[in-house]
Amino acid sequence: MPHIAVDAMSGDSGPSTVVLAIRDLLEDHPDVIFHLVGDTVSLQTELEKAHLHGSDQVVVHHASQVVAMDETPSQALRGKRDSSMHVAISLVREGHADAVVSAGNTGALMALGKVFLRTIPGIDRPAIAAFLPTTTGRFLALDLGANVDCRPEHLLQFAVMGSILAERVMGVTKPRVALLNIGSEEIKGNEQVKEAALLLRAARLNFIGNVEGSDIYKGVADVVVCDGFVGNVALKTSEGLATMISHELRASYTHGWYGRIAYLINRPILQRLRRRLDSRQYNGATLLGLNGIVIKSHGNADRFAFACAVKVAITEAKHRLTLRIAEVIQENLDPAVRNSA
Amino acid sequence: MPHIAVDAMSGDSGPSTVVLAIRDLLEDHPDVIFHLVGDTVSLQTELEKAHLHGSDQVVVHHASQVVAMDETPSQALRGKRDSSMHVAISLVREGHADAVVSAGNTGALMALGKVFLRTIPGIDRPAIAAFLPTTTGRFLALDLGANVDCRPEHLLQFAVMGSILAERVMGVTKPRVALLNIGSEEIKGNEQVKEAALLLRAARLNFIGNVEGSDIYKGVADVVVCDGFVGNVALKTSEGLATMISHELRASYTHGWYGRIAYLINRPILQRLRRRLDSRQYNGATLLGLNGIVIKSHGNADRFAFACAVKVAITEAKHRLTLRIAEVIQENLDPAVRNSA
Repeated sequence: MPHIAVDAMSGDSGPSTVVLAIRDLLEDHPDVIFHLVGDTVSLQTELEKAHLHGSDQVVVHHASQVVAMDETPSQALRGKRDSSMHVAISLVREGHADAVVSAGNTGALMALGKVFLRTIPGIDRPAIAAFLPTTTGRFLALDLGANVDCRPEHLLQFAVMGSILAERVMGVTKPRVALLNIGSEEIKGNEQVKEAALLLRAARLNFIGNVEGSDIYKGVADVVVCDGFVGNVALKTSEGLATMISHELRASYTHGWYGRIAYLINRPILQRLRRRLDSRQYNGATLLGLNGIVIKSHGNADRFAFACAVKVAITEAKHRLTLRIAEVIQENLDPAVRNSA
Repeated sequence: MPHIAVDAMSGDSGPSTVVLAIRDLLEDHPDVIFHLVGDTVSLQTELEKAHLHGSDQVVVHHASQVVAMDETPSQALRGKRDSSMHVAISLVREGHADAVVSAGNTGALMALGKVFLRTIPGIDRPAIAAFLPTTTGRFLALDLGANVDCRPEHLLQFAVMGSILAERVMGVTKPRVALLNIGSEEIKGNEQVKEAALLLRAARLNFIGNVEGSDIYKGVADVVVCDGFVGNVALKTSEGLATMISHELRASYTHGWYGRIAYLINRPILQRLRRRLDSRQYNGATLLGLNGIVIKSHGNADRFAFACAVKVAITEAKHRLTLRIAEVIQENLDPAVRNSA
């Protein structure tokens, strides 16, 4: 019976979105208890509006503060001891919940996670891991921005954790793990990636070598590993181009009456395309490596997107992801690190 | 009167494409002489087919070998002394041509360029610089893959060269130069980027600070500077996503009769979109920092795309880009490097 702590106050949307997202999940997840954290009055109001007041699947925990989106991690740590984010994380730390979901400030979430949950023994740096679409399904990418200037052993740790997550959440047997590089040949790449390749090859992973940026969306790998700086730039650049294409596509339709008619006729096609590529279904990045399941939702997630993030938390909790990673780290990482020294 | 050396044999398309591309340029560039390098027999055949035999704007230079697309730079250097690529570069070295254009193997072109042209004094590492689209025009991005593990001073050199190219080729006064980073705040980024920011701020540049990947296509900067590994990954990832969107868009249309009709009606819109985002118009990357103008075309460029690359060479030659960079380096770089030591 998984218990999910939900920070109901962080992010742009607020408690009403969170409550509706939870309501949408109750039927399919009758065995899950949702611990909503935030201002009790606001939450009870929203629960009543949603006819959830009295639901035995929902528990409310009070928190008097909220971490603002522009707050620095240190401000969040020192000044906001009773923030909804902190209280939600504490529920996991104290064992009252198996996972926590927040739409708040990523830096603060990671900082609070590191201080109050710490990392899984053997993991130096937790990474931000998220699923991205391929033409045939999805793949896991990490690190998407938590760590810059990673050492090769950090990339190895990302690979091991990512492989376990892919196995547990995607249900993939022997997930194919690749390093994001500028060419497929072994001689290509910077020092960090070349050395990481040696470590990954020696570890117990289904390591398929390097993958170029143009191939990750083709589904050639289930897990793509990179430095946080590279991952964040690659992700943001792709998003920027997708936005521009979308902008140009819309602009192409306004050319006179023909454009307008074509648009109307084309609308179901575009809608199908939007659904297929809908980023909302991929909402829910895992702060992978913390000693507890921590899921980050986009700040502007709507009810559907937030529910997707909570589903990630439920799945990882059901598969006891943190425990499994801790077990594998013991078996896998130590020999590899010793050998590479 | 600019002289442009054209490697007519490298790349996938061969001399017929190159000759037709040159023919398309003759009328608009009556003052340019094109030195076509390659197998004389093939070239004369193509020139006759194109009715250019006897044109006083075309000169043929014989080369008996071709650098293959999968050859390593060292193979190209040692084994192919009479390759069309080498002969074309030699024309620039000996002062018979102001620029060289090749659709061949990038690694070989860069290696031959470094050995036979060397770099502009003050430049350690030439970068691959190319124009990319924005919603309002275009911007210059570098380094797109020539150098990994750049030091901050290399990024400064890229910035200075890129700024001059943008000024000369794009005609932009005081081009806005930005560093590709994971956030706009100064505290963000890896060590390399943070230190580079200090150097760029101290130099005589219109440095506007950091730019995130999602903003580069919005036209916030005229020149975007990054490490070659990061630039290559970002570019390839964006291209991969664009390909996937395109694939999904096409796939959306095949759903039954409605899809087919919608596609037909939508075709002019899609064509306009394709033209707007047509990567062929951006063909022609500059190997910036070599002591001579060297332009790299995509290997699979068609006649239109190859002509675009040659136009880049013509513009840079007319603006005496190499000379201008050498002048500015003297004024600009040395004090900045000394101060940063």
